[in-house]
Amino acid sequence: MLLNCDLGESFGAWKMGLDSQVMPHIDLANIACGFHAGDPTVMATTLSLAKAHEVGIGAHPGYPDLQGFGRRSMALSDTELRNTLHYQIAALDGMARVQGMALSYVKPHGALYNDMMRDEAILLQVLKTLSDYPAPLKLMLLATAQQAEHARLASQFGVELLFEAFADRLYTDEGQLSARSLPNAVHNEASVLAQVKQLLAHGTVTTASGQALPLKADTLCVHGDNMDSIKQIVAIKTLLKTQ
Amino acid sequence: MLLNCDLGESFGAWKMGLDSQVMPHIDLANIACGFHAGDPTVMATTLSLAKAHEVGIGAHPGYPDLQGFGRRSMALSDTELRNTLHYQIAALDGMARVQGMALSYVKPHGALYNDMMRDEAILLQVLKTLSDYPAPLKLMLLATAQQAEHARLASQFGVELLFEAFADRLYTDEGQLSARSLPNAVHNEASVLAQVKQLLAHGTVTTASGQALPLKADTLCVHGDNMDSIKQIVAIKTLLKTQ
Amino acid sequence: MLLNCDLGESFGAWKMGLDSQVMPHIDLANIACGFHAGDPTVMATTLSLAKAHEVGIGAHPGYPDLQGFGRRSMALSDTELRNTLHYQIAALDGMARVQGMALSYVKPHGALYNDMMRDEAILLQVLKTLSDYPAPLKLMLLATAQQAEHARLASQFGVELLFEAFADRLYTDEGQLSARSLPNAVHNEASVLAQVKQLLAHGTVTTASGQALPLKADTLCVHGDNMDSIKQIVAIKTLLKTQ
Amino acid sequence: MLLNCDLGESFGAWKMGLDSQVMPHIDLANIACGFHAGDPTVMATTLSLAKAHEVGIGAHPGYPDLQGFGRRSMALSDTELRNTLHYQIAALDGMARVQGMALSYVKPHGALYNDMMRDEAILLQVLKTLSDYPAPLKLMLLATAQQAEHARLASQFGVELLFEAFADRLYTDEGQLSARSLPNAVHNEASVLAQVKQLLAHGTVTTASGQALPLKADTLCVHGDNMDSIKQIVAIKTLLKTQ
Repeated sequence: MLLNCDLGESFGAWKMGLDSQVMPHIDLANIACGFHAGDPTVMATTLSLAKAHEVGIGAHPGYPDLQGFGRRSMALSDTELRNTLHYQIAALDGMARVQGMALSYVKPHGALYNDMMRDEAILLQVLKTLSDYPAPLKLMLLATAQQAEHARLASQFGVELLFEAFADRLYTDEGQLSARSLPNAVHNEASVLAQVKQLLAHGTVTTASGQALPLKADTLCVHGDNMDSIKQIVAIKTLLKTQ
Repeated sequence: MLLNCDLGESFGAWKMGLDSQVMPHIDLANIACGFHAGDPTVMATTLSLAKAHEVGIGAHPGYPDLQGFGRRSMALSDTELRNTLHYQIAALDGMARVQGMALSYVKPHGALYNDMMRDEAILLQVLKTLSDYPAPLKLMLLATAQQAEHARLASQFGVELLFEAFADRLYTDEGQLSARSLPNAVHNEASVLAQVKQLLAHGTVTTASGQALPLKADTLCVHGDNMDSIKQIVAIKTLLKTQ
Repeated sequence: MLLNCDLGESFGAWKMGLDSQVMPHIDLANIACGFHAGDPTVMATTLSLAKAHEVGIGAHPGYPDLQGFGRRSMALSDTELRNTLHYQIAALDGMARVQGMALSYVKPHGALYNDMMRDEAILLQVLKTLSDYPAPLKLMLLATAQQAEHARLASQFGVELLFEAFADRLYTDEGQLSARSLPNAVHNEASVLAQVKQLLAHGTVTTASGQALPLKADTLCVHGDNMDSIKQIVAIKTLLKTQ
Repeated sequence: MLLNCDLGESFGAWKMGLDSQVMPHIDLANIACGFHAGDPTVMATTLSLAKAHEVGIGAHPGYPDLQGFGRRSMALSDTELRNTLHYQIAALDGMARVQGMALSYVKPHGALYNDMMRDEAILLQVLKTLSDYPAPLKLMLLATAQQAEHARLASQFGVELLFEAFADRLYTDEGQLSARSLPNAVHNEASVLAQVKQLLAHGTVTTASGQALPLKADTLCVHGDNMDSIKQIVAIKTLLKTQ
């Protein structure tokens, strides 16, 4: 079970995330590409940090909305979405190759990630966009009750999937993440570890109504916002090593 | 003698340049990369047009200044300049590979081009940046009285140069372009053709004071702003075929 | 019946619209405020042109999406929408006062205009935003079958409305504009003038199904994209003078 | 002796500065206007905070360079500089009036501030720009050995000046700030308080070579970057109250 984290989300003079403290503990770094966060120098620095810790790298492209951090849905046409993704992926890809590294996957960011999970037409456009890229790129997306269907769609485009689960979030019965605004949507530390154990042991999470939802996860999404989240990553890492 | 032209300078809803009318007549397309002009969809469209006409492609990166069209000098640090160039080159490079094409050169745009020609430290940083890119990229720059020295510097970085000359501009005795604000700085059609002929026949241009300045040019820069400039390109092209 | 036109939509080096040729013929200039189009210098130039021709001025604010020209819906929060509008209105307001002019109205642009006409919550937020501005500002919006209801809502906020109609667009039976993609959605010149005549004489337009739809319009929206649209403005102006 | 601080420098999801902890201790808030930092919602929030603490407000406009935080010189034309300033000042001015507040001064930010202090042509353009604004606006600038000359220039434009001094920075013999890269350029806490005492008691600062440089300062610039800088503000404030 690999740990992935969104990194390289600083921009210019603005710092975000404890990248240098998270990087030693994770397996996959989702790196912002300059449209919703990140700038060329932040990207180069983040790639260099990933290289030093032998962390796998993926592109984390978003809507072209710096002010909204890519968290506001934007109605892009299919062509705009395709080119917006190719541009961001290519920019990070080339900068990675400058440092002798290679991208292995793409995880859409923020509102684009949510839109892709909600709207199959967008998911199909993302899959087509990745399959048209001249290097093999997996797509990282949320493991939900629809994951078998998503795997089927991806295989039509020859795109491999990386399903991610969240250790710290409560799932609905439909296998979506409970909105952060709802009570108990975000787990405390004990519940986080319990959710990870259950995923490893049984391949399920316990949903809001108490049901066991089967989820096959390749990777867990962790966070590097502050020292508490770093501690949580370390606790999860320790747990994973002892399983 | 190849013809090169700045293309892909539209942005979003704003159109600039008669790209589809210029492309059939040129050999090398300098394509904007999104920082001073161009956006992902404009870039994809321009690449596709270049492919249809079998035109060679180069990156045309600029300062991150959309409002100023990259024409205002910006004091970037060495690191910022390097990463700003790698980002833009990589973005276009990957989008070109999506269409089965490959970049062969880089021509800095606007104020960055002028700063590079004026300040050797910037030229060296550009050369180092290109030599560190994981694919071979030539640098297109102005053929001046310093071109032998520039070739020597470039060879230290293993970077090939493409020297460009201007058919429509008067040269100073120092081998620079006369400022557009000066009288006679921009040639009329007869003078344009005469300057091209002289370059081809004698490898010289006649400077403001009437001297013959030796210039070894690999390519001529032409313009696609309006129908008059298209006619000028066709006239130059016709001349080249008959030499 | 006043003529209004979207102006000041150039940005940096990119020109859009024949502003200097439209301005002599119109009564109200909707001026872009820098978020989807326009920049500080374009705004100052457009204000100066409006002053020279004694044209009334209004702010034409849009979503913060230069690349999409404000034509892509963005999911702004109420607070973001309010502040985004106040910022743009204030910027143009102050620049107008530098030239001794005063804004009299606001017309949202593009996707924001459409969202406001479609979603009453957005309309209410726009009305509240205008009523909180320290100078009286009318709201320009589309005259539809709901215009009486819109007038009632606006009066609750103490905001006056300027209803606009389109001379060149076919209306649906519901009093909306037919989508441009539909056949006959955009009138030819004879139909344009007929629609204006009918609006003046009877206060109605003929809808797609042939019904007479009552519309009370304070102003007609005209366009300055090219020479044909300028000719259309002149033809409408001539018609208005003879009624 | 008033305390001024740069505030409202967050942008979108990125936080910068401890604004809510600084505001209770200062007299004048220099508020970013969206070009190098700040966005409409950050600006509204900062204005509201200033109002709650009865802090005077000034515009803190910068170069249009978000990525470089306005710290990279940009070669704007006179017209561009004028309009860029009017736009930013106007945006903040109108948003302040929405909250029943009024701007009283302008302090250019970052590279623009440095360029203005270094290049008299830019200072003159800034003074003219402020004198043309339809409300009275003072200019905040650095108190240097040239302050009498600067006062004379400003009076020609009818613009009042607010001279600021730095409590934490070593001055050169020429009355400029020592570059931060030099040893001893930034004072420790004891030296900060000593410099403030000397300014109050004698109207001088001790320069790098040990000379007493006369400086007439209306305001001290303080910083709200972190908890240490807040403590420094409180210590200065305490000192000021006991003088």
